Amino acid sequence: MTEVTGTAEPAPSIIGVDVGGSKILARRVDPETGWAEGRVKAPTSTDGPESVIDQIEAVVTSIDDWRSSIAIGVGMPGPVTPGGVAGPCPNIEGWDEPIDLAAGLRSRLDKPVVVSNDVNCGAAAEHRLGAGQGYSNMLAIFVGTGVGGGLVIDNRLLGGERGIAGEIGHVTVEPGGRPCGCGGRGHLETYAGRAGIDAEMRRRSDGGANGFLLSLVGDSPLKSRHLAAGVDAGDPLSFALIEEAAHALARVIGNTATLLDIPLVVLGGGIVDRLGEPFLDQIRQSPDFGGYGPTVTDLVLARRLDDAGAVGAALLAADQLA
Amino acid sequence: MTEVTGTAEPAPSIIGVDVGGSKILARRVDPETGWAEGRVKAPTSTDGPESVIDQIEAVVTSIDDWRSSIAIGVGMPGPVTPGGVAGPCPNIEGWDEPIDLAAGLRSRLDKPVVVSNDVNCGAAAEHRLGAGQGYSNMLAIFVGTGVGGGLVIDNRLLGGERGIAGEIGHVTVEPGGRPCGCGGRGHLETYAGRAGIDAEMRRRSDGGANGFLLSLVGDSPLKSRHLAAGVDAGDPLSFALIEEAAHALARVIGNTATLLDIPLVVLGGGIVDRLGEPFLDQIRQSPDFGGYGPTVTDLVLARRLDDAGAVGAALLAADQLA
Repeated sequence: MTEVTGTAEPAPSIIGVDVGGSKILARRVDPETGWAEGRVKAPTSTDGPESVIDQIEAVVTSIDDWRSSIAIGVGMPGPVTPGGVAGPCPNIEGWDEPIDLAAGLRSRLDKPVVVSNDVNCGAAAEHRLGAGQGYSNMLAIFVGTGVGGGLVIDNRLLGGERGIAGEIGHVTVEPGGRPCGCGGRGHLETYAGRAGIDAEMRRRSDGGANGFLLSLVGDSPLKSRHLAAGVDAGDPLSFALIEEAAHALARVIGNTATLLDIPLVVLGGGIVDRLGEPFLDQIRQSPDFGGYGPTVTDLVLARRLDDAGAVGAALLAADQLA
Repeated sequence: MTEVTGTAEPAPSIIGVDVGGSKILARRVDPETGWAEGRVKAPTSTDGPESVIDQIEAVVTSIDDWRSSIAIGVGMPGPVTPGGVAGPCPNIEGWDEPIDLAAGLRSRLDKPVVVSNDVNCGAAAEHRLGAGQGYSNMLAIFVGTGVGGGLVIDNRLLGGERGIAGEIGHVTVEPGGRPCGCGGRGHLETYAGRAGIDAEMRRRSDGGANGFLLSLVGDSPLKSRHLAAGVDAGDPLSFALIEEAAHALARVIGNTATLLDIPLVVLGGGIVDRLGEPFLDQIRQSPDFGGYGPTVTDLVLARRLDDAGAVGAALLAADQLA
């Protein structure tokens, strides 16, 4: 057999797969640089977990055209144990219980498989390729319908004893405060998450002066653009809700910095992207921001990397297999 | 030269030194088992840092009679950088600035020296030899005049980017709450630390029904035994202060468990030792205890190990040199 040299043989890659509520997306990632090539996607099946696992196998097989990948990393929208048992995933039809996804995919693909939480994948991507480059310790907070977080400690994404670290949305910021979907009260995401802001907006919109936002939103869910429109129009309730979100974020950032000596916080997600630097300034000016002593915390916007979930899943797989 | 075999040659040991405000104590520690032998101590000098460093050198030289130690671990009552720069240490006369203690001792003793914060030393001892045995992730909280903490993540004591992780006493539990010595408000130690409870007791003791504790304490600082006496006498203010301490601790424990997925919290220090299991029950019954989702947190009393500071300093030195 003739020995082949040169560039025809691709470098070893890791396939990263981001499994979301609406689509499944796979990329081929160089684990050294984070450089991604190829992109395969499919609308997430609503026929239950087996069908979704079939799809994951299909996108991996499709993108791994050289069969040269050395491992598979998968990001899932729910809790994931260190061993790769994922779920429940409320955004995926029928995925109501924990399922050993790592074992299932390993037996189908005959390669190492590492499954991670999708927010942790996003945090890993920000750390390696985004706003966290060069830092050994950082906290990433993603504000969406709820609020998720990922912690990097000594250059490793913190998974936690049972794989549920980073549930920052359910940290209490206001004892006895706004009711949370989880049954608790005063949790961060009731102040900073879109669903929490929406519910509070409806509670305070008793017609009259506070009705501006409700008139924009109607019966649909509140969007980030509605809040931005409220600010543009000088609507007092919009200002108040944003201010309260900033205070809640500042408090959790300050406490986390105090406890963990974290110098960098990266903030991303719909509302943050929409409101931008002025919102970060509101957080910085809150009295609880910064934490104790010399813990001056840098607060920066996330880079909004392309396909951060898929790329981060591959990077976390590389970390775990190293 | 005749080769000597048998037990005359001691196993390699690490000298652990606990530098406190009143005494300096050294022990010879087997880094594998944590077993400690020998004990040398000296009253802490009030003649300034150079004199204290002389004392550290003296106790180490004295206890290391075989000159067989492979390293020195030192615990200091103040912040310590990862490189071993310690201070300020308010309890040591004249130690008002950071001093490169590791470098100073290394040049005097010609051995590896690792300097750690004393609370972290106590946490490491509890993890390896006390209530935390068998856990990979835990939080230790020590309640004294103030409140300190140490976090073990994946079997390593978390030092933090700049060596100031674990400042749990200054986590905000009550926005805008009791004033803290650091200038902040509503920090954990204003509710659970002896100095914070003392100050609050004086604020609420306006003669009349709330004067019981003040009549016991007078102008001296409040002690744990005063609170215990208040409970025995059915004093409502004593009950209230203890209840508020329990709620504050529960809140920080719950939030830390939520953020970090920590299954075990070890609690120690004067007030905790005095009040014991009933106080832990009060914490467990607080609504904020336990954190989010499946984060059921075990809360146990610290073991009150002998010379935990010195032994922990040696164990941390072993970890860092491994």
